[in-house]
Amino acid sequence: MRFAADTNTIEERLADGLSRVEQLFDAQLRSPFPAVEELCCHAQRYRGKMLRPTLLLLTGMGSTQGALIVTESHVVAAATVEMIHMATLVHDDVLDEASVRRRCQTVNSLRGNETAVILGDYLISNAFHLVSRVGDPALNLRLGAVTNALCEGELVQLSRRHDVSLDRATYIEIVRRKTAVLVGACAEIGARLSGASEEVVAACYRVGEHLGIAFQIQDDLLDLTGDEVTVGKSIGRDLEKGKLTLPTILFLEREGARERAAILRAIETRDGETLKSLLLASGAVRGAREYACSLVASARRELAALPQLQVRAVLEGLADKVVDRAN
Amino acid sequence: MRFAADTNTIEERLADGLSRVEQLFDAQLRSPFPAVEELCCHAQRYRGKMLRPTLLLLTGMGSTQGALIVTESHVVAAATVEMIHMATLVHDDVLDEASVRRRCQTVNSLRGNETAVILGDYLISNAFHLVSRVGDPALNLRLGAVTNALCEGELVQLSRRHDVSLDRATYIEIVRRKTAVLVGACAEIGARLSGASEEVVAACYRVGEHLGIAFQIQDDLLDLTGDEVTVGKSIGRDLEKGKLTLPTILFLEREGARERAAILRAIETRDGETLKSLLLASGAVRGAREYACSLVASARRELAALPQLQVRAVLEGLADKVVDRAN
Repeated sequence: MRFAADTNTIEERLADGLSRVEQLFDAQLRSPFPAVEELCCHAQRYRGKMLRPTLLLLTGMGSTQGALIVTESHVVAAATVEMIHMATLVHDDVLDEASVRRRCQTVNSLRGNETAVILGDYLISNAFHLVSRVGDPALNLRLGAVTNALCEGELVQLSRRHDVSLDRATYIEIVRRKTAVLVGACAEIGARLSGASEEVVAACYRVGEHLGIAFQIQDDLLDLTGDEVTVGKSIGRDLEKGKLTLPTILFLEREGARERAAILRAIETRDGETLKSLLLASGAVRGAREYACSLVASARRELAALPQLQVRAVLEGLADKVVDRAN
Repeated sequence: MRFAADTNTIEERLADGLSRVEQLFDAQLRSPFPAVEELCCHAQRYRGKMLRPTLLLLTGMGSTQGALIVTESHVVAAATVEMIHMATLVHDDVLDEASVRRRCQTVNSLRGNETAVILGDYLISNAFHLVSRVGDPALNLRLGAVTNALCEGELVQLSRRHDVSLDRATYIEIVRRKTAVLVGACAEIGARLSGASEEVVAACYRVGEHLGIAFQIQDDLLDLTGDEVTVGKSIGRDLEKGKLTLPTILFLEREGARERAAILRAIETRDGETLKSLLLASGAVRGAREYACSLVASARRELAALPQLQVRAVLEGLADKVVDRAN
């Protein structure tokens, strides 16, 4: 049997679930040491779109017939994935020497790299501690594999810095590991904790993986073409840090020797304005955006596997927002 | 019933267990990416005394009557604690800007802080992934609590850098969290995985905690009075990084205003030679050493709870080596 559920109800349940996630997140990071509490409070200001918990709760509600329930395990898992994500933000800002994140000063710029390194470690540690409360060894194993992949993606990316021969397949593989494997796992875990069929669980993973790659491409586009006030974080970091992203890779694939020489010069001299205008004029930015949109379309197609029609509609809206955003 | 076991057999079993730990450790870090493999190979050179796996395997063998067995769970847990330890070494070297570790160049000095940060994350992630293979949620929960405490210790220490009012109780609490909680957990987990009684498990934890604090005090003494060639890692980092350690704290507790002014000047000007000679001449170094030895004596007393006499003798030898070492 199947209960009727209108979009309003889904959104209410989601909002309620996300508020439980936030409460649990904050409770997990409580510490007897004022110095630790204060740092965690600062990091909590990084909390933004809550994409990962949202996806987990929605696939949790949408992947089986019956009542739309957000269980305690869903809430614990959702708080865990957000905590893993926040740890990566704190360490990413160290790597990128970024000074602004969600319109706040970053931990590294306020308190130094050392504190940011250990705060990130503390968040990772708390994430693994928190998820152990579910008491499901398979979930621990899965999340360990996810964070292994995430770090591998970052390590491969670091090893290819300033390497202008980076090809599209390798770029996508880096992005898949460093971003999309976690987003995929969110969608998968939501479904699995609801007891969905293996077929639905696998479809959910693919939804998240597609959206994760699209999300990262959009992030890279914002780093290239956005302004810091709108985006709310330090931009132009990819050029500064020697990270080749999709528009540049497409440009180098498609353009002639003279154009390639011009863009390589802009990269070498860290001339962001020239880089941006070359990529915009050549259609490489548009090409990257089209690729991200095609991934969103693939994700939307995979959503057909979800039995709950109204939840599916909410997820379709979420999928569109991955590429239609200015921050 | 109780099988006879001579020390030789225990040492053979321990050596065999440690070799299984090393094999599992290396297998866990295998990666399809050459850039990742190469980094892990470098980090594996940090492997030193294997204190933590040794302690875990020995309490595993010594805490129950019957045959001295090293189970697969003991091996997995022992490889996990060593991996956690290695992750902390990699991140500590970033924090300390150290360039030498176990007579090798550190990852941060060879490949930059960014790579060292993510390599440390990769080791933490793999540790949690590995231990999930035991399939025991309580073990995951316990290790999560241990790494939470470890990071809290580091964060409190960072927040008290250059603070000459740091008192002895706070120093000991920092050391307990950043070092001794993990060592205690090693001894505890070894016993627990062997099915030891709660009383023996608790005694094992205390053995490890005492030894962990003693170990850190000895490390701090080597940083102060050792030479880099013998110690095998960068020394003088505590003074450089504004970390007050036990000899200085004892000196400030005991000495008069003029002596205190002299040592504060040495700290402010980072004059390592003067600091060292003041601490040696005043007996503060000896006082710190005596305190470490008293902790080893407490650990030895707690060992009386272990039913296996011969394993206990090996553990007593291990306890002595914690403070009788030059590297």
